[in-house]
Amino acid sequence: MSQADEVTVALLGGGTVGAQVARLILENAQDLAARVGAPLRLTGVAVRDDSRHREGIPDELLTTDAAALAASGADVVVELIGGVEPAGELVAAALERGSSVVSANKALMAERGADLHERAEQSGVDLYYEAAVAGAIPLLRPLLDSLSGDDVSRVLGIVNGTTNYILTKMDEEGADYASVLADAQALGYAEADPTADVEGLDAAAKAAILATLAFHTRVTLAGVHCEGISSVTAADIAAAHEMGFVIKLLAIAEYDQANNSVSVRVHPTMVPVNHPLASVREAFNAVFIEAEAAGDLMFYGQGAGGAPTASAVLGDLVTAARHKVMGSRGALSSTYNDATVLPIEDAVTSYYMSLTVEDVPGVLARIAGVFANNGVSIAGVRQEGQGHNARLVVRTHSAREGDISDTVAELQDLDAVSEVVGLMRVLDTEGS
Amino acid sequence: MSQADEVTVALLGGGTVGAQVARLILENAQDLAARVGAPLRLTGVAVRDDSRHREGIPDELLTTDAAALAASGADVVVELIGGVEPAGELVAAALERGSSVVSANKALMAERGADLHERAEQSGVDLYYEAAVAGAIPLLRPLLDSLSGDDVSRVLGIVNGTTNYILTKMDEEGADYASVLADAQALGYAEADPTADVEGLDAAAKAAILATLAFHTRVTLAGVHCEGISSVTAADIAAAHEMGFVIKLLAIAEYDQANNSVSVRVHPTMVPVNHPLASVREAFNAVFIEAEAAGDLMFYGQGAGGAPTASAVLGDLVTAARHKVMGSRGALSSTYNDATVLPIEDAVTSYYMSLTVEDVPGVLARIAGVFANNGVSIAGVRQEGQGHNARLVVRTHSAREGDISDTVAELQDLDAVSEVVGLMRVLDTEGS
Repeated sequence: MSQADEVTVALLGGGTVGAQVARLILENAQDLAARVGAPLRLTGVAVRDDSRHREGIPDELLTTDAAALAASGADVVVELIGGVEPAGELVAAALERGSSVVSANKALMAERGADLHERAEQSGVDLYYEAAVAGAIPLLRPLLDSLSGDDVSRVLGIVNGTTNYILTKMDEEGADYASVLADAQALGYAEADPTADVEGLDAAAKAAILATLAFHTRVTLAGVHCEGISSVTAADIAAAHEMGFVIKLLAIAEYDQANNSVSVRVHPTMVPVNHPLASVREAFNAVFIEAEAAGDLMFYGQGAGGAPTASAVLGDLVTAARHKVMGSRGALSSTYNDATVLPIEDAVTSYYMSLTVEDVPGVLARIAGVFANNGVSIAGVRQEGQGHNARLVVRTHSAREGDISDTVAELQDLDAVSEVVGLMRVLDTEGS
Repeated sequence: MSQADEVTVALLGGGTVGAQVARLILENAQDLAARVGAPLRLTGVAVRDDSRHREGIPDELLTTDAAALAASGADVVVELIGGVEPAGELVAAALERGSSVVSANKALMAERGADLHERAEQSGVDLYYEAAVAGAIPLLRPLLDSLSGDDVSRVLGIVNGTTNYILTKMDEEGADYASVLADAQALGYAEADPTADVEGLDAAAKAAILATLAFHTRVTLAGVHCEGISSVTAADIAAAHEMGFVIKLLAIAEYDQANNSVSVRVHPTMVPVNHPLASVREAFNAVFIEAEAAGDLMFYGQGAGGAPTASAVLGDLVTAARHKVMGSRGALSSTYNDATVLPIEDAVTSYYMSLTVEDVPGVLARIAGVFANNGVSIAGVRQEGQGHNARLVVRTHSAREGDISDTVAELQDLDAVSEVVGLMRVLDTEGS
């Protein structure tokens, strides 16, 4: 394993982040050696094409044999390839060889986290992945160490910069989703195929990782309900604005201690303007944590980009390297708490919904009856307009998602209701 | 040292936080054991008066012999006595006996941090003190681990809840310092003797700790320039407000790479309303970190109170206990970078100042001449009123504090200047 006089580092992946990490290791060698307690020595950089020169990286370090480099027995293997496979097999091989692993791979950790943690545990090495969630914002270590004596009840995250940028622009400019998305693509804030971002899949992988760390239980991507922002309209945003809310794509992870269950989901959410998350604008990320003793905490910063991601990777690398020098290792995430992961039907949420109704005597009674029959309690109703196109805006109390869906289905069958036009979950801040 | 089957914990101090920590250790025993990897066993609680029962703590654990308990060889000693001595000698004795130490003592760490870190290093044990700065907000571990591969250029902190509460109320109510302080004392937000808070001493100790961790160099309380809020007037706040600023008591730690020097200071500062720190209100704390690769980060939460402080202490305790179980230890702060700590005269700041002048021909030229002679460049001037009581509001560019002081002294000697009424530093956000 480690020799006292140096720490060897193998780097899998030579893209934007990989090249930046390699350069920082080489350029900041002296500072990093002082912080680690021994110099870092880069033993190789696995790339797809080793004939292309990478600025700042000596050509002789490049290799196309990622499998050999991963299993070379370096003190620390840094995985920046992305995607579940072959990255997963490479990381598994490195852990088995006794290398500590640093990864920025959210898909891999959300999918194979349990298996990889077990291998790290068996080999007695570190497995760190701070860069996988919200770029350079320190989140995993605060959850793993700083809050390890506390009980986290809820994590609320704006963890996807692209969707936050789009929603911010829609809010500022009153523009439609499609036109803002096109602008975002032109400016490089959204990719040509924006699906993973705008449909919430990227945020869902991060939500799984955050929930696992916060609640000491294993949550995978399959346990995360996911809705994106592609159906959010300019009218939704304007209506929310009028009522004192902004719409954010939130990753929400909630723990119910009484039932030892967790609900993890990603969906557009109406956030009160005075909530700290409401003022997180543009491509910034923030994670809001509610803990029993610590109270409310928020972590804010840049969630993406080469430099912030490289910063998070290097922080993990320095920490893992220090442990190698000291002959020790840090804590892995604990998952002793075998909580039930609830399906979306059993999540407890509250809604605003907007109904186009016929303004005739008794209509409100019939509508209210549908809510009551399904066990959904109404927090408030407001009528706008009159006659055939009257609109009712209904705010519900917290209720089971399944009961709300049944309510909406029944409402749509009522003669007096022509349409349920707006249906949006509201951030419940009563408990916080 | 550690036995694999339990981790022994000795608690020095049975006040609000101490009693809460003891209760949490006893009540959450099962969860904590799962997170640590072995049960925690509380071996004693040192208190001043062991005849008084503490809710939730078995009387037989109480002892008045803190020295014996500190040197009892417990796996982890938790120091919650406060003050530099005798806490310092007790912590030193515990470290020498091979106990890891968790402390919430900002005064001790700001004063004797270097000595105590050296003892921890020699004994190969942990020394953690997350609760010493900004209560439950994870700061020390993010600086120590997460940002260990990055270069921090500046730390800006609202780290004293009392003064932030007072400034928030002065801003909201347009009230005077004295009346808001009296209200804050009545509500329990300020102590009967508020000196340590309002004169910035509490914030200065935290600034020393933050600077030490952020810049990998040793900074003690003696290196921190400190001005409090007791001379901030309702007029200052109103004037700032009008110009788009709020006044905050900031702990500022800056690193100048070119000269390998640091400037650490606490003083009232005009913060632009659109800066994330401007919206940190009431007794909340927040720390804003500017790092080369990570960019801007902010950490926000409750800075004081029994429960948040206990959360931070328990997080450190679980982390130190895990290390005992694994036979390892975490990183101590590295202070390899022997930077010069600049006196306040050499700090670089920018100012707003307000001068009452005689509005006669040539007065502006004479005033501008004084700035120029002292090497202070003017960013903007605005005149209000005319005749004998005209007011000039001058915004300077960044300049040496010493040169600004000389400028003000010379201005006060000018016949045409009757008074320099407002003089307030402005947060420089050009670089960020």
